Amino acid sequence: MRNEQAIDALIRVLGADLVATGLGIPDRRHGDWSGVPASVPRALLRPYSTGQLARMLHICNEFGQPVVAQGGLTGLAGGACCAPGEVAVSLERMNAVEEVDAISGTLTAQAGCTLEAVQEAAGAAGFLFALDLGARGTCTIGGNLSTNAGGNRVIRYGTMRDQVLGIEAVLADGSVIGGLHKMVKNNTGYDLRHLLAGAEGTLGIVTRVVLKLHPQPRSVSTAWCGLPNYEAVTALLQRAQAELPGGVSAFEVMWPGYLDFMMEKVKGLRAPLPGRHAMNVLMESAGADDVHHPAAFDDFLARMLEEGVIEDAAVARSSTDARSLWAVRDATAQLPVLLPGMAAFDVSFAIADIGRAALECEALLREHWPNGTALVYGHLGDGNLHVIAHADGGRPETRAQIEERVYDLTRRYRGAVSAEHGIGLLKRKVLGHTRSPAELAAMRAVKNALDPKGILNPGKVI
Amino acid sequence: MRNEQAIDALIRVLGADLVATGLGIPDRRHGDWSGVPASVPRALLRPYSTGQLARMLHICNEFGQPVVAQGGLTGLAGGACCAPGEVAVSLERMNAVEEVDAISGTLTAQAGCTLEAVQEAAGAAGFLFALDLGARGTCTIGGNLSTNAGGNRVIRYGTMRDQVLGIEAVLADGSVIGGLHKMVKNNTGYDLRHLLAGAEGTLGIVTRVVLKLHPQPRSVSTAWCGLPNYEAVTALLQRAQAELPGGVSAFEVMWPGYLDFMMEKVKGLRAPLPGRHAMNVLMESAGADDVHHPAAFDDFLARMLEEGVIEDAAVARSSTDARSLWAVRDATAQLPVLLPGMAAFDVSFAIADIGRAALECEALLREHWPNGTALVYGHLGDGNLHVIAHADGGRPETRAQIEERVYDLTRRYRGAVSAEHGIGLLKRKVLGHTRSPAELAAMRAVKNALDPKGILNPGKVI
Repeated sequence: MRNEQAIDALIRVLGADLVATGLGIPDRRHGDWSGVPASVPRALLRPYSTGQLARMLHICNEFGQPVVAQGGLTGLAGGACCAPGEVAVSLERMNAVEEVDAISGTLTAQAGCTLEAVQEAAGAAGFLFALDLGARGTCTIGGNLSTNAGGNRVIRYGTMRDQVLGIEAVLADGSVIGGLHKMVKNNTGYDLRHLLAGAEGTLGIVTRVVLKLHPQPRSVSTAWCGLPNYEAVTALLQRAQAELPGGVSAFEVMWPGYLDFMMEKVKGLRAPLPGRHAMNVLMESAGADDVHHPAAFDDFLARMLEEGVIEDAAVARSSTDARSLWAVRDATAQLPVLLPGMAAFDVSFAIADIGRAALECEALLREHWPNGTALVYGHLGDGNLHVIAHADGGRPETRAQIEERVYDLTRRYRGAVSAEHGIGLLKRKVLGHTRSPAELAAMRAVKNALDPKGILNPGKVI
Repeated sequence: MRNEQAIDALIRVLGADLVATGLGIPDRRHGDWSGVPASVPRALLRPYSTGQLARMLHICNEFGQPVVAQGGLTGLAGGACCAPGEVAVSLERMNAVEEVDAISGTLTAQAGCTLEAVQEAAGAAGFLFALDLGARGTCTIGGNLSTNAGGNRVIRYGTMRDQVLGIEAVLADGSVIGGLHKMVKNNTGYDLRHLLAGAEGTLGIVTRVVLKLHPQPRSVSTAWCGLPNYEAVTALLQRAQAELPGGVSAFEVMWPGYLDFMMEKVKGLRAPLPGRHAMNVLMESAGADDVHHPAAFDDFLARMLEEGVIEDAAVARSSTDARSLWAVRDATAQLPVLLPGMAAFDVSFAIADIGRAALECEALLREHWPNGTALVYGHLGDGNLHVIAHADGGRPETRAQIEERVYDLTRRYRGAVSAEHGIGLLKRKVLGHTRSPAELAAMRAVKNALDPKGILNPGKVI
């Protein structure tokens, strides 16, 4: 009833074009990549401007109408799914790159812009926008910020929060936070930008951002390394960070079961190295020139080979070579098809703990599900481990048991139950594994302060 | 009265050793480096543990007793000064480096540890702790985090908030936020670490931190460059970031009036270059080796000279040379003596705006105070400008007029009234020049949510 009043008021004030209902809502707005069963939104709000969104939220807040902000719907935690009666907001009509400021090294974009469009606009101006992830063509900058997205280059450039200098956002009551600044340093009170980053649309809806741009690297060197043990992996990481000019731009680690599985199951993959190694690392370094940097990269690997840190290495001599090495890591995109009903984890630990945590995780999965599959890989420099576990044909009950055990292990190692995918709906029950009761109480207090009626993405995160 | 009850309760529960009063309070706890006239604290709380601090804040909160967290008292905005009747907290007894985790690349320290002690512990383990500023021997890690300290190396490593992986803090009600994690990636709800960073002790008191360590550079190259105009300065910055291996670790810009003044007034300074240039840049780049990197640095400068980006350059050939160049920049430490009663600004702008903003600032100061002194310099890569203005013998009324005009200019350029020193007491009146009414309202809501009785550093920031 109240619900109908809110929709009526929205249509009356903003018009049917901005407030779609029923068949006017595209199918793809019904759910995200998480597989969470979602409801059709009661209405889909598609503003052209921050002012329109402000009026929308003001009305929803008046009526206590719940609102779910949706970006490209590529999330894996159900953070953008609607419950019955909820209204969705999409900024797909606010998708412009508004400015590239080549002197300040900034790009200003509307939140509905895809990550790829931002990357391309930065590239056309001779810059690099550093965030990158597989969903780049679909996910949006607003979603990237709201989930504090990560990806492969975090080790060099940080997560999404580190790419943002200024934000404009609309709060639950329709007030507009106007902080579209280009300053690198701004110590003027509380940092609302960092508060909204990673809040998954529960504290406000980001409408525009000022992003930091980086110089484009002049060369990229890539190698696959085979190593004898986890200690060698952490040694290689530290040595590479210290001794390679420009450090490391990607450091992807794969345990041997991962490689065995991919080589068997995925057609067209080429084994990076002839032998089998206890650990595998795909390492990338971006350089400021294309002569000395590749030479320094080769020298470094030769040194590591000589010192026994690595057992073998394959250096990419062309972009085709590099793509072929990355294909082994990117084959994870095929996992949902290869292992339907799999449990997928995105956890993080102190780097010093990862070796033991990974072994223990593999062992407990093998112990309880000896015929199952367990794959372990991750962005090691960020302490971010991905674990894939599949048993009993992917039955939901088995998945739930696996999740309980792996999240329990994460808690014991004082790790994070989500390194980059976020909490959304799916990980709410294990949020307390990582955050203390006092932290959860502080989070709730902040939520109540900024959204006293609880209309923004209710039931998500906390 | 209520005040006396709070002190009595503190002494009764915690004992006189933890709760000093009267002559038991050292003189140096009476004020900070800002020159703000401060009161003697009603009591000085010096806990040995987080648990003791939690009990202290619980009692203060019960009685509504205001509490001011004090670090090394080197702040320049009056953020750690006590008003009459307020109680000070010092973590000087919680000053241990608890752990260096060489595998994870982290250092865990208590908040009362000096910055220098952290730098030394990191160095002894073969790492670099990247934050550095002049007050290093006195300022504390807790104060650094609470003010989100900056310094000379922000361009390469970020501000203090970027050095912190985990925090433990006590909130107003005595609850302990236990987030001492070592994870680089942790997307589990709101980021309280970033909320407390830069909050100047108004939201909680940080007790322990996990800090990120970096590899020590193998070589550092330093040069002084003379340039024809501001456009050349931004060109040099961008080219250096793109073309120098490892980029730029310091990029300090000085307008010519700065150099003229320092050469005339400060004894023992050597002019870095024979000629006078429209702009001066002190540039530093840290390298991963001591052969190729210095050569690449020289090549780069030769290229810039040939292309006309720079007019002249002096490259440091020894650490003595480098110190001599830095002495010209670090001569700012003498300004309070050379220009007593000066107005000092720590503002930031978009890099593209700085050239015009600096000229306009100099012009308006010259127009109104033709016999005054105006010095402009700053951390250009961070958009951070320092302006020093002195006229009429440093009379307070003149200083107030200068401040009004310079902060008004900052507002017109949509800059920040504090880039790194914070708001504290001194800049509260101009906070609205940078933050919008909706932002201020959101900040107040967050403050009320986490500190409903307003006991933490009342009257500061907002």
